[in-house]
Amino acid sequence: MGRTSDAKNKILSAAQSLMEQRGYSALGVAEICKTAGVPKGSFYYFFESKESLALAVIDEHWAAELREWESILHSDAAPLQRLRRLFEATQARQQAGQEDCGSVLGCMFGNLSLEMSTQVDAVRRRLQDIFEAQVKMVGAVITEAQRRGEVTVADTLDVARSMVAQLEGQVLFAKLHNSPSQLRTLWPSCLALLGVQDGQVPVPA
Amino acid sequence: MGRTSDAKNKILSAAQSLMEQRGYSALGVAEICKTAGVPKGSFYYFFESKESLALAVIDEHWAAELREWESILHSDAAPLQRLRRLFEATQARQQAGQEDCGSVLGCMFGNLSLEMSTQVDAVRRRLQDIFEAQVKMVGAVITEAQRRGEVTVADTLDVARSMVAQLEGQVLFAKLHNSPSQLRTLWPSCLALLGVQDGQVPVPA
Repeated sequence: MGRTSDAKNKILSAAQSLMEQRGYSALGVAEICKTAGVPKGSFYYFFESKESLALAVIDEHWAAELREWESILHSDAAPLQRLRRLFEATQARQQAGQEDCGSVLGCMFGNLSLEMSTQVDAVRRRLQDIFEAQVKMVGAVITEAQRRGEVTVADTLDVARSMVAQLEGQVLFAKLHNSPSQLRTLWPSCLALLGVQDGQVPVPA
Repeated sequence: MGRTSDAKNKILSAAQSLMEQRGYSALGVAEICKTAGVPKGSFYYFFESKESLALAVIDEHWAAELREWESILHSDAAPLQRLRRLFEATQARQQAGQEDCGSVLGCMFGNLSLEMSTQVDAVRRRLQDIFEAQVKMVGAVITEAQRRGEVTVADTLDVARSMVAQLEGQVLFAKLHNSPSQLRTLWPSCLALLGVQDGQVPVPA
């Protein structure tokens, strides 16, 4: 039992790393098993198909990212400070990824949205749910800032969606240029989307 | 000679359509030739590899898109009106694509940036050039608006880059949800990035 769940983790970890580097379509089950160091029979013991593995990788990746988002967005800091930390954490993560493997790997959810959302319905729905959860989390913090009179926006969810879109677009450029510094304008752009001038952000007490 | 260049066009057109629907990695040369209705020998007469075909598809696609961008951005309309038309044309193109084939196919350059820019250097460089050209074109119009006192931004290229990133991020959502209406907030978001309130946009004379 110990050995089998270890094999499952090895498959998940190899698949996550390969999918981040090369996407989904370019991978075969044989290569995933070889990288994981497990026999192909183990793969089909744990996963029905490459598709169901992709869903499991997405779920694991989101569970980890969600923990980070919650720890930042549910902290005691002022709403705009929490948002700032969230967007700056993205830059730090891409920077760390580049230092680890030499390449900015981008956002797995964005990568898979563009590569396979038109092809695998179950993946499309899962990615829709993840981005909707992100938009709602950001929207809730904007609502708090709005209540404190720190921002004035017409529709908090629309602005939250634009901020998450801004993140995805800028991460795309960071990946394309293999340069995390492309993300240096991410937070200023988010402030502009919130209708706030940089100098107006309240300093935490 | 007529027949051979016809075969080349058929390959380019089939490859463009297949790449828009399913990306690059999922395609094989055999499938492209079958869709194009040309023998595999023709393929290697015109293209050294699938990679060189991808570059040719990207170049053709950008040549067509560039004509549209130039016709909008070099018109006599006021700068912000031209930018508005450019971003609204994106929504119209995604809408038309969906009506044609049932799916929002997104932006080919964004799709390929996330799918293959880390894998094929020549493609990465071509996509970098295309996005830089887009940023410069948008930046030049922002500079015009700035000279007319219609916007005040610290760095026109940074804002132009954020606007193109916003387009890519929102097109990602439109593709993920198969819904061109996701792009309804694209222009308002661009105005926010420009620091302009919607009601402040000058009406064309």
